[in-house]
Order: sequence, then C-alpha cells, then structure tokens
Amino acid sequence: MSKIDLVIVGSIGLDTIETKFTKHEEILGGSVSYACATASFFTKTGMVGVVGGDFPEAHMECYRSFGIDLEGLITEEDGKTFRWSGVYDDDMINRSTLSTELNVLETFAPELPEAYRDAPFILLGNISPELQLHVLSQARSPKFVIADTMDLWINIANESLVELIGKVNLLTLNDSEARLLTHEHNLKTCAKKILDMGPDYVVIKKGEHGAMLVTRHGIFLVPAYPVDEVNDPTGAGDSFAGGFMGYLAKKGEVTDRNVKEALLCGAVVASFGVEAFSLERLESLTDEQIEVRLGELKQMITL
Amino acid sequence: MSKIDLVIVGSIGLDTIETKFTKHEEILGGSVSYACATASFFTKTGMVGVVGGDFPEAHMECYRSFGIDLEGLITEEDGKTFRWSGVYDDDMINRSTLSTELNVLETFAPELPEAYRDAPFILLGNISPELQLHVLSQARSPKFVIADTMDLWINIANESLVELIGKVNLLTLNDSEARLLTHEHNLKTCAKKILDMGPDYVVIKKGEHGAMLVTRHGIFLVPAYPVDEVNDPTGAGDSFAGGFMGYLAKKGEVTDRNVKEALLCGAVVASFGVEAFSLERLESLTDEQIEVRLGELKQMITL
Repeated sequence: MSKIDLVIVGSIGLDTIETKFTKHEEILGGSVSYACATASFFTKTGMVGVVGGDFPEAHMECYRSFGIDLEGLITEEDGKTFRWSGVYDDDMINRSTLSTELNVLETFAPELPEAYRDAPFILLGNISPELQLHVLSQARSPKFVIADTMDLWINIANESLVELIGKVNLLTLNDSEARLLTHEHNLKTCAKKILDMGPDYVVIKKGEHGAMLVTRHGIFLVPAYPVDEVNDPTGAGDSFAGGFMGYLAKKGEVTDRNVKEALLCGAVVASFGVEAFSLERLESLTDEQIEVRLGELKQMITL
Repeated sequence: MSKIDLVIVGSIGLDTIETKFTKHEEILGGSVSYACATASFFTKTGMVGVVGGDFPEAHMECYRSFGIDLEGLITEEDGKTFRWSGVYDDDMINRSTLSTELNVLETFAPELPEAYRDAPFILLGNISPELQLHVLSQARSPKFVIADTMDLWINIANESLVELIGKVNLLTLNDSEARLLTHEHNLKTCAKKILDMGPDYVVIKKGEHGAMLVTRHGIFLVPAYPVDEVNDPTGAGDSFAGGFMGYLAKKGEVTDRNVKEALLCGAVVASFGVEAFSLERLESLTDEQIEVRLGELKQMITL
C-alpha cells in the first residue's frame, strides 16, 4: 500500500441539481468527493467521509477509478446518505437550496485509520468546524493544514470555527463569507483580520472571477480559467481546494512559489469540473489536459 | 505647442452622486474628463468635448492642471452643461441613474482642431456612436483607435454602433454590455463575436474583477488592483481607458506586450481614481505613485 500524502475530510452527498437547461437527480456530490477526485491527479489521497447503506456501488467504483484510498470512508449500513438539492439561477452562479437531509452526517465522528494519522497534508473540506477539529486532533504532526468553510458554520458554529481557524495554515472561503466572518466589506481588510486569527495564508474565492491569496507579506491574484461552457458550478470550490492541496502535497515543500503554482492547478482542475455535472468531466480528465490548460492559464497572466 | 499624440472625445458632465456615506452635488465628471486626466500622465492629450456657459472656471483650471490640451473643448455660452445624477447601492458597484439632462450634448457635433487631425491615437470615449463616427471621420490616418460604449447605445443606436465597431482597432465595454451586444452569455464567445465585427482587440471590463483582453490569438486576464477603500467608482472605466491609451501612445508601437502593459497601467490609474470623488485623487497623483502601484500589481500576478 502506498503512503497517504493527503487526507481530505468532508461531506459526501447525493445531489439533485436543477439548472435552466436540465435537472439531475441524486448524482454523486459532496465536498470530499470533488476534492479527493481533483487531488488524486497529483498525489495519494485518503478520503474521510460517511455514506449510508443506500450509497450506490457505482459511486464507490467511481472513487476507486480516481485511485482514492477509501480506508477512511465509513458506510453506515442502517443509515441514509446525506442529500442536498438546489436550483441555479440563469446566471449559473447564484443558487437556492431546496432541501437538505443530513442523515448519516448528523452523527458522523470519524476515527482516522492508522495510515492516515501521519499524513503531512490535511484538507478539512467544508463540513462542521467541530468535525474538522475532531479530525485535526487525530493528526500526529501535519505539515500543512487547510480548512474550507461556509456561511452556515459562520452563523451557527462561530466559536468552534474561530478555534479551528487558529489551528490551520490556510483558510479558504468565499468573498461573501469572508465579509460575514469579519464584519468588513473590503476583501483586503477581511483577509488581514483572518490572518490575525492565526493562519499564514488566506484564500478568498470569488467564483468565476478567481481568488485572492493574501499572506502577511503580499497578495497573489489567482485567475479563473475562462471556461467555454459552465454546466454545473457545484463543487467548484472543493475541486479548487483539492487540486491545490494535491499539487502542494506532490511538491512536498510549502514555499510561496509552490503555493501560487498550486493555486493555478486548483483553478485549472476546477475549470474542468464545472464543464459537466458531478465528477463526470473529472472522470475523463487526463494529466495532459491539465498540463495544457495550466500552460494556457499561465500565458493569460504573462506580460 | 507640443504635438497632440492622443485625442479623446467624450462627455463632460456635472455629476450629482450619492453613496451610503455621502452625497456630492454637481462635481466634475463625464467620460472625457476622467479619460483625459489619466491619459495626461503619459502623453500629450487633446480633449474634444462641449460644456455650457455655466461650466465653472475652476473645472477648466483643473483640466489645465493635468496639462490637457483644450483646443478641442467647445463652450456654448448660451447652453447648459450636461448633468447626470445617480445613487450607488451599498456594495458601491451597482448604481441607479436618478436623472439625465443632455443639454449642450444634444446638438454636439465637434469639428476637430487642425492640430488634432493627425494624432496617431484616438480614444472615442463613451458618447453616442454617431458622434464617435463623426470625430473618427475627421482623423487623417490614425494608427490606433479605441472605442468605449454602453448599454444605452446598444439599445438605441445599434446600427451606428456596429458601423463604428467595424472601424476601430479595439472595442471596450462591460461584461453585461458585451452580452447585450452579442446575445451570448459566455464572455469568450461574446469576445469572438465582437472580433468578427472587425476589431483586432476586445477588452471586456468586469468592474472590480478586472478585465479580459481577447485577440484572435489569445487572452490576457487584466487584474484589478485591490483598492483599500472605494469611495466613488464613477468614471473608473473611463480612467482605465484613458490610462491605457495614454501609456500606449507614449510607447508609440502597438505590440501585444505594449497593449498588455498599457492595460495594467489603465487598471492602476483607475484604482487611484475610485479612491475619491470626481478627479480629486487624480489631481494629487504622482508618476512615482503610479510606478509603485504598477510594480505591486505586476507582483500580484507573478508566480
């Protein structure tokens, strides 16, 4: 068995997604699905998540096809898998949640497999900060930990979230969430306030407009790759985080240069992810296609 | 008298602008005011515009302080200057027009001064496409012509606008306007359709998210400089276009490298412009401050 370089925890869901063109029911989703899929292009990735007895074997097969290690994936035979349904506005950016069924996520409290506890890189995908802290507490001596979060946790689990932020190297969140968390409007000011909470890096995501990396000594503007056709933006932030951490884990050393390059990789894999629903486009993605698009994206920010 | 390198035509207005913090009445505005002010940092710029007898001498003095050539500025003593008033949403991005009084703009049909007709660079600022065509027809052999436009002209003067687009080297417009003009949603597709109408370059502006340059052989993603405090975004697009053309005229040669560098200059001067109302921040701006921020912006897109 090959060593696990990167452990990712997050939600696994069966998503029902409606856009102006089409509707897909109970397709594979969840933050850890997208993040592990993209990370697996770069490094050996272990998944920490939970599904119910109703989770289709085909989805397990899909995970395996990416080479994701599934020792940390728990199946609760008597439970039901988490479900989410939402509908996108015509702009394919804003969306409304129609329903959420936590199911097996409600009581999830994963024990990390022994092989995961020494992983140097940990991505705490979007899930409750209590769970993120629970997973982090089992890691022996991680080299680089990143956490993603969302408005829900800022609103209902603020104290745990603040505790978590104090323990990670990088926090990533959306622009609106950064504003909600810090009660500031200007994103540079938001980022500075978050750095004051502990992390060395903050990545503020701006959807189709890219992201902004802020450290104590500078800013890097992460471009978004201009996609020809966005069919489903669900999971784009998770794909971005997964690609980022996968690349960084592959590099091994956390330098500013590697972090920036990893952010471009994240942007590239996310740009593929949104071309189709669920993990569909990622399943047919090749290393060469990533390489080509990464070269294009670099060209687009070169004078 | 020094040779005019760049001629800019556009509106001159007395703007009344309300934001959540403050309200300013009848301050100096209009597309040609912002564009000439920023262009003048780089090159000898001639202004083509019209004001009424009520136009304050202090504003003329302001133009002169930038070193703008005013031979092409007409004062209609019996008329009133164009007025616009608007209110910004709390996000300081979206705005509503409260009133528009065309006044002297309604019958404006400028004759270019002799000294302007051989200018190699022409910026047709946001004004009716008929007027833009009228000015362009008097230029003897311009080297590089750019036009800015807006939703109003796409809606009420589409035919003239299409004629104009066929005659310019670069068209710049907002993302929403690019979509309106081409009936496409994807900005790359919009840009390709606009290139098919004639220009060699299209610059789609995305407000605080920067801009995208599209040519027949590539894309350059123009970053926006992350400003600490936006106090008035009015005229940002005009400042951007003015800084862009001023820098390009200074360079003289239209190469892809110079165009990209000029776009960064445009982004930088626009980032200063929005820090205060009207031309206030631009009046105190120095070449050194531009240089410093340009260096910072380049750093922010460097791996």
